[in-house]
Order: sequence, then C-alpha cells, then structure tokens
Amino acid sequence: MPLGEFELIRRYFDRGPARDAILGVGDDCALLAPIDAHNVLAISTDLLLEGRHFFADVEPAALGHKSLAVNLSDLAAMGARPRAFTLAIALPEVEEAWLAAFCEGMFALADRHDCELIGGDTTRGPRTVCITVFGEVPPEAALRRDGAQPDDDLWVSGTLGAAALAVRARSEGRRLAADDVARLRLDHPEPRVALGLALRHVARAAIDLSDGLLGDLGHILERSRVAAELDWPAVPVSPALAALPEAQRRSLALAGGDDYELLFSAAPENRLAIEAIGQRLDLPLARIGRILAGSGLVVRDARGQPLHIEAHGFDHFT
Amino acid sequence: MPLGEFELIRRYFDRGPARDAILGVGDDCALLAPIDAHNVLAISTDLLLEGRHFFADVEPAALGHKSLAVNLSDLAAMGARPRAFTLAIALPEVEEAWLAAFCEGMFALADRHDCELIGGDTTRGPRTVCITVFGEVPPEAALRRDGAQPDDDLWVSGTLGAAALAVRARSEGRRLAADDVARLRLDHPEPRVALGLALRHVARAAIDLSDGLLGDLGHILERSRVAAELDWPAVPVSPALAALPEAQRRSLALAGGDDYELLFSAAPENRLAIEAIGQRLDLPLARIGRILAGSGLVVRDARGQPLHIEAHGFDHFT
Repeated sequence: MPLGEFELIRRYFDRGPARDAILGVGDDCALLAPIDAHNVLAISTDLLLEGRHFFADVEPAALGHKSLAVNLSDLAAMGARPRAFTLAIALPEVEEAWLAAFCEGMFALADRHDCELIGGDTTRGPRTVCITVFGEVPPEAALRRDGAQPDDDLWVSGTLGAAALAVRARSEGRRLAADDVARLRLDHPEPRVALGLALRHVARAAIDLSDGLLGDLGHILERSRVAAELDWPAVPVSPALAALPEAQRRSLALAGGDDYELLFSAAPENRLAIEAIGQRLDLPLARIGRILAGSGLVVRDARGQPLHIEAHGFDHFT
Repeated sequence: MPLGEFELIRRYFDRGPARDAILGVGDDCALLAPIDAHNVLAISTDLLLEGRHFFADVEPAALGHKSLAVNLSDLAAMGARPRAFTLAIALPEVEEAWLAAFCEGMFALADRHDCELIGGDTTRGPRTVCITVFGEVPPEAALRRDGAQPDDDLWVSGTLGAAALAVRARSEGRRLAADDVARLRLDHPEPRVALGLALRHVARAAIDLSDGLLGDLGHILERSRVAAELDWPAVPVSPALAALPEAQRRSLALAGGDDYELLFSAAPENRLAIEAIGQRLDLPLARIGRILAGSGLVVRDARGQPLHIEAHGFDHFT
C-alpha cells in the first residue's frame, strides 16, 4: 500500500524539533527566527528537472546532494553562511528506497553546512526538485556580481571542465564508472561555502560557475559594466581532460557548465591574502586574468594572442 | 529567434530596483532586508505541475494568479503579512504572449498584497511553477495548527465546494464559461490575507483549505491532539452547488479541495470580535462546529445525528 503524502513527509523530511527555525516541517508556513541586525537574508532558488538537469537514471543520493549543492553554491557566491532550506519535490511514485537514498545524500550535505530543512511540498509528478535556500551575510560583505573594478585580478577556484566532460559522455550514452573523476564532479559538486565566507571583504565580485566560465564571467562584466581578459594558460583545467585535443579542452574548460567553482575579482593588493586562503582551505585558487575598463572579453593564448572561442554560457532556454 | 533565458528574466521578471529587498532579480542570491525584532519570517513553498495542479489549457493569467495565491494563502493561514517571493518556472518554450499574461496575473495579485518578486530561476521543461513566499508575523501571534483547545469554536470563511465542482466538470471534459462561478473559484482563489492578519490574537489555530474541509481539519486535530464535531447544516455551501443532490453537495463541500478559505478555531468569548471582523472585511464567517477533548471527528446532521461521510483530504500522493 502506498504511503500517503503526509506520512511521507513525516517519515523522511521531519527530523524532529526545529533547531534554528521556530516552527519547521508540517504547518502552513515555516517560521524562521530573526537574524542579528548585522546580517541580511540571502535567498536563492533552483528548479531541477529530470532529463534537463539530471539524468533519469541518476543515483538518488547524488541527486539529493546535488539539488542542495547547487543552491549552497549560490550562497557561497554571495559570501553567505547557510542557515535553512525548503524542499518542494515531485516524484512519479513513492519509492521508499529511492527517497531514503535521496534524503541521505541531501541531509549529509545539509548537516555538514548546518543548514536545516524547515518546510516544503511533496506531490506526484515527473521527478522535479525545487530547493530554496536561506543564508545570512552582512550586506556590506556580500559578494555581488556588480562589484568588479578595472585592474581587479580574476580568480577561479578548483579545476574546470570535468563536469562538462561527464555531461558529454552521458549524453552520448556512455556509462561512467562510479569512481570516474568526471562523473564525481558532475554528481557531487562541492559548494565552495568556506571559500565564499573567507572572501568577504577580500573579493569585490563573485559568481558560481554553473553555466560555464565565459558565460558566468559575462554576467559579472555586464553587471559591473567592465571588460576582462583571460589568460588561457592560467586556467586550471581538470586533469580529467588531459588526454583531449587542445580545442576540446578549451571548449570544456571555458564553456562547460556544472563545475560550481567560484569565479571572483579582487584588488591586486589582496593576492597574498587570497593565496593564504587557498592554502588554509586546501583549495587551489588560480589567478586567470584581469578586469579592464570598457566592455568585452578577450581570451589570450600563451603568446598573448587573442583566441577565438566558440563558446557561450549554457543557456537553459536556447 | 527565441529569447535567451537571461533576456527573458530581464524582460518579464525584473521590474527595476528592489523596494523591500536590498538586491533583487539577477544576482546569485536575493538579499532581503531584516525585519524588525518583533517579527519572524514565515516561509511557504508550493510546487504546481501541469496535469496535476492545473490543466494544460489553463489561462496563463489565471495560472499566474493562482501560483502566487496558494502561497499567499499559506501566509494568511499563519497570520503573516506578505513581503516577497521567489519564482522558479519551467516552460516548454518561450511563448511571449503566454509569459506576459502569466506575469500580468501574478503581478496584479502581488502588487495588491505589496509582495515583491526578489529572485528566481527559469528553465525549459514541462510547465512547472514553484513559488516560495516570505511574510512576517510576531511569533506569539502566529496562527499555528497546534493551538486548538477543547471548547474552541470552529469557523470557516466564505463558501465551500465551488472549486471542487469546477475540478469535477473539467475532469469530465466539460468546458466552463469564463464567468462560471465555480470556474472563477478554481482559477482565481482569493487568499484571505486580511482575515489572517485580523485573526492574530483572536484565533487559536488556523489552516487554509487546499485539500478539503475534513482533511485540513484533520491536520489541526492531529497537531493539536484534540477532537471535533462539525454541524453540517452550518457549513456554508457554495450557491453553485444548490442544484446538486444532497450527497454530492456534502461530498464537494466537505471533501473538495482548492477553496483556499481559512478554517480556524477560537475561544467562544471571541464570537463577537470574529463577527465584527467578518463585517469589516465583508467576508462571511460561519461557525461550523467545536473542538472537543479526545480524538476523532464527527459530522452531525440537522437532528444532531452523526453522518457517515465518504471523504478524505485530497492527498497528492494517493
């Protein structure tokens, strides 16, 4: 006999008395306790659809992780500290094993970031996950997209391109081993929350890389009304791409999405501070270019010559 | 040529500088200004899927209205004042006329309640709408589900059953005229926000009727650990059901969902205050039963005899 909706909620999503929330799962609304006067609430929402944002055969634990990770990544890109989230989920049927694994993946990540599930909605339908996440940040420390200034350095965390490689492989019907580096990057992105917090008052602008380096950098340039140049040899390409021809490496690393690394701009006088942050977090931070006055984006090769890149940000509507 | 996602966001969802929000549509997160120390944030999220929560041929303006209305209704049921919302939406294609009408319906309701769109997500896919809404309420005034006490009166606003009548008609393939009363109730539910605010410190428990009177009352009883009896003759049945046989009227009014009226419990000494609220808001408020100690729910007919009702709350998963 299938579980009813409300029993389902209770069994999987209600983890007992709310910690940070005054009232959690199970009423008309969740009630979130006020934050102190120095902070504002940072809010982000992401809608994930089967066939578009994840494959039908995705491991439920990976989907649970990723659904929350992409939202935590938005908080990270704002320099916000995670606090709570709501989950709206549609499932074609109540599969308890699937749901248990989904929750395991989601709550493992939530617990690591002290981020509490405070409410949601469940319904029957094509697999759909919509998480809205809440964090806190002092408004003057928020890493907005519009803060980049000419002469800022451009930095990126981690390595790029592995997730896009996995997307390509799976789109071509190839199955990747469970321990495949590219697959792990696609299914288990690590939101750079600690980095975002460390970059408060250090970076001037930041964005997380969901749509690809060039496309996401384009958002910073547009919002900040500036230009930029990127040094292609400085871009930290994932070792998973080492065997590919140069053009493919470039395309995947510069235009492939789903990496969920942070791209940020910072004044040159902060270089040492940023390098220290990378060492403290054991996270490579690469200086890949600079912000310029004007408009436009140039990618330069090892000899300083402009590269022509066939690349646009991944646009969910085109 | 199709519009890109980001152009789409700008054109339809970015209505200029944020009012209440510090930072609105177009960054990694929205930043919501703090609320004063007397209030907490009330949060609700609803996921609406085509074919399950709305018909494929729904008028886009009606869907825009209803997607926000069901969320505002949750705030109303908590006694919270609307403040802001996020919208995550999937559409199979970028249809500008459809989107313009959707926005018209949504923003007309949002503006009436001074509730600002502060962020969201857009993607291509089966029509899906996930709104998360934010309101504010002093925690001691919040109308929770667990506050009902024995001897409380049970009240309901408006009239019941018309929306369920429209669902039945459309499920049977019958088209309803644009001015059909039942269709208007289904497509244009009016969130009882003003009533919710007026019931602060007057009602002890409240819920909005999305799943049907008996099912939603069941949530109050369960959370408050009490029983109840309902007087069927006192239930305000919609005039749209007047021509139906008694059994059908009963089934639609007691178990039909989608009315989005408020059901609430209040101490008997508040009867005059509640009647005055109804008059001030020009909204019928009917006293339909009472809370009892114990457990269970009895519906009584005009002679006080228990009625057997074949009715359960609409469960999105069974």
